[in-house]
Amino acid sequence: MWDRLITDCHVLTMEPIGDDPLGLIRNAAIGIHEGRVVRVGRRTDLAGTRAAEVVPLGGAFVTPGLVDCHTHLVFGGTRATEHAMRRAGASYEDIASAGGGIASTVAATAAASVTELLEQSRARLHALMRGGVTTVEIKSGYGIDPASELRLLNVIRTLARSEPVRVAPTLLALHALPKGADRAAYVERMVEDLLPTVARLGLATSVDAFCEGIAFTPQETERLFEAASAHGLPVRLHAEQLSNSHGAALAARHRALSADHLEHLDEAGAAAMAASGTVAVLLPGAFYTLGETKRPPVDLLRKHGVPIAVASDCNPGTSPSLVPQLAMNMACNLFDLTPEEAIAGMTVNAAAALGLAHEVGTIAPGKAADLAVWRIAQPAELGYWMGLQPERRIFGGQDSPTP
Amino acid sequence: MWDRLITDCHVLTMEPIGDDPLGLIRNAAIGIHEGRVVRVGRRTDLAGTRAAEVVPLGGAFVTPGLVDCHTHLVFGGTRATEHAMRRAGASYEDIASAGGGIASTVAATAAASVTELLEQSRARLHALMRGGVTTVEIKSGYGIDPASELRLLNVIRTLARSEPVRVAPTLLALHALPKGADRAAYVERMVEDLLPTVARLGLATSVDAFCEGIAFTPQETERLFEAASAHGLPVRLHAEQLSNSHGAALAARHRALSADHLEHLDEAGAAAMAASGTVAVLLPGAFYTLGETKRPPVDLLRKHGVPIAVASDCNPGTSPSLVPQLAMNMACNLFDLTPEEAIAGMTVNAAAALGLAHEVGTIAPGKAADLAVWRIAQPAELGYWMGLQPERRIFGGQDSPTP
Ligand SMILES: [Zn+2]
Ligand SMILES: [Zn+2]
Repeated sequence: MWDRLITDCHVLTMEPIGDDPLGLIRNAAIGIHEGRVVRVGRRTDLAGTRAAEVVPLGGAFVTPGLVDCHTHLVFGGTRATEHAMRRAGASYEDIASAGGGIASTVAATAAASVTELLEQSRARLHALMRGGVTTVEIKSGYGIDPASELRLLNVIRTLARSEPVRVAPTLLALHALPKGADRAAYVERMVEDLLPTVARLGLATSVDAFCEGIAFTPQETERLFEAASAHGLPVRLHAEQLSNSHGAALAARHRALSADHLEHLDEAGAAAMAASGTVAVLLPGAFYTLGETKRPPVDLLRKHGVPIAVASDCNPGTSPSLVPQLAMNMACNLFDLTPEEAIAGMTVNAAAALGLAHEVGTIAPGKAADLAVWRIAQPAELGYWMGLQPERRIFGGQDSPTP
Repeated sequence: MWDRLITDCHVLTMEPIGDDPLGLIRNAAIGIHEGRVVRVGRRTDLAGTRAAEVVPLGGAFVTPGLVDCHTHLVFGGTRATEHAMRRAGASYEDIASAGGGIASTVAATAAASVTELLEQSRARLHALMRGGVTTVEIKSGYGIDPASELRLLNVIRTLARSEPVRVAPTLLALHALPKGADRAAYVERMVEDLLPTVARLGLATSVDAFCEGIAFTPQETERLFEAASAHGLPVRLHAEQLSNSHGAALAARHRALSADHLEHLDEAGAAAMAASGTVAVLLPGAFYTLGETKRPPVDLLRKHGVPIAVASDCNPGTSPSLVPQLAMNMACNLFDLTPEEAIAGMTVNAAAALGLAHEVGTIAPGKAADLAVWRIAQPAELGYWMGLQPERRIFGGQDSPTP
């Protein structure tokens, strides 16, 4: 006797069936017990099964709960003024001299109390959850000094413990060099002081850096990655967003879970990622907000068989995004992903990018019963609409409406 | 004694105060009686007023309820397959030969029962309402023959009568020439048969056409406009979207309420619109979905003082858009509107585009008490976030949560 039997639906299992990457089962049923999927198949194949509750969905489509595998959700303030200035033609120098950029978010985050940070971040988390997200990665990074980074990781932990959503916390250890700081001493402090503390307290499940001309060098990134490995923490990397620093190949050498952005990725980088099983995380919301024109080389990723994920990149500077399905739509419209690729990008491949493929991202026996229910007539609609919200969100087998 | 007194909020009246186009009143209050605003001002200036209910908003911002002044909300089916084909590189010929384009929506609309059309359209209307819309224009147009157009206008009327939202119904009389139809005979039938019937039954408050190389000529459009005027119906026009047909100037000659799209507008067109008070309705969702690169000449509109509105263009082919705030964000990101222009574009100027400036679009004594309540710290956030939803929506003075 199971807890729930979900019926009268079409299920995108996201485990390929024949040449269907979506693993679509029409007229399906899903058995759920103790928060996990125990069986999924055609309704007729599940005849005779019994459950305490039968939940008919009236012909809706069911996907795995969405996995948003790249966010900077915890921050103080907004960058709305800077956003408006940029539209009015302000240069980066104008914005910097008006106090804009990452530094302004660092200052606003420092100025906010923990209560304020929790309240503002929770509102954004609720928006993503209303949009169907059941697993979300959240990076630190707007602390930039060790104590402030620990404060943000504790805010992330409080959010994780108080909301019906799975949270993968990431230490973004090298995000921006504080103004006037000595580079070498700063990297030393973040690697030798902050990282071991985070590892000891179990505050993050992966470690990230921003490898870019305007941020940190490949050498500095490598130093961090070596230390992370020594502490048993997997790594991921902001790579090749604004230029080609060969960060993706570096990430691959360190068996990174993901390399993210990748607008300027070259073929050697794509091949290296494929060999190491590193997921390519595309962030069309940032591409859109920054008005970029160089698109990530999706054909190279396909050619080499690199798994592609898609994420909201929810952050105050370059992707103040509150509707996760919009990331799938933008991945289709701006990067020419197929709807199937976009859906895999926010389910199975996003789970892999978080090292959670054993737990979430597909609908299969043993996986968490995290589901999103969509009132659509065909899967391609998930890439088509601009701002579609699911009708229901099921987390750990339970209906979980969001305030 | 008023019905309600809204307090503890900052109000964007959208009636300019000094050089502030938003007419922002901080620490404001709004008195509401019998569905209308009776007074708006600083809280301290409304001391001593009495209301049956006091509604404190905890420091939120209040705007007029959003006015979405250009939608094709009523249709059957989707164009999700065509959307995916386009991303995969299919040409217009490929899509047409696969049965795509407007004709496919016409067929799907004809195949849907009135009950199905109502159900599908209501879901989209609810999405817009959740996004803060209190007034929405809805065009017919996917009927293309007189009887089918009347059927759609009746669906629009049923929606209008059953939902807490103001609906401005538009007869889109010349949308697409049916395959194989004789041009002259078709225009004759729509102008001489359909239009008078619609006027007699009061099924539309304005008349629209698609003036474009691939649709109808300026001469055909003019014929329709002359007949509309004879029936006392104001006109609006899809103009200059894909090429410059001088439709905006034609619309201005007929004192059109609005000319919409306008990517290829020239200076003579902008000057003519300014002289006739015709509103420029910008539709960034269609620009985004079609991957256009030619942007409407916002500087010309500013130079000539043409009022600018912004709309979702919710439609199945080129803007399957469900979050109205996203239109404001896209107007800023893609067309470089200021946040103030984007907000005016979905309030005061959109009301003007519908001929409803006396009723909605600003917060002022005598206007309908249609309000949207936003949990933001500054007005610019309405152009900044991607997919922000209001916290509350007040229609005719009443809280009106949407299913
Ligand atoms: Zn990032
Ligand atoms: Zn239109």
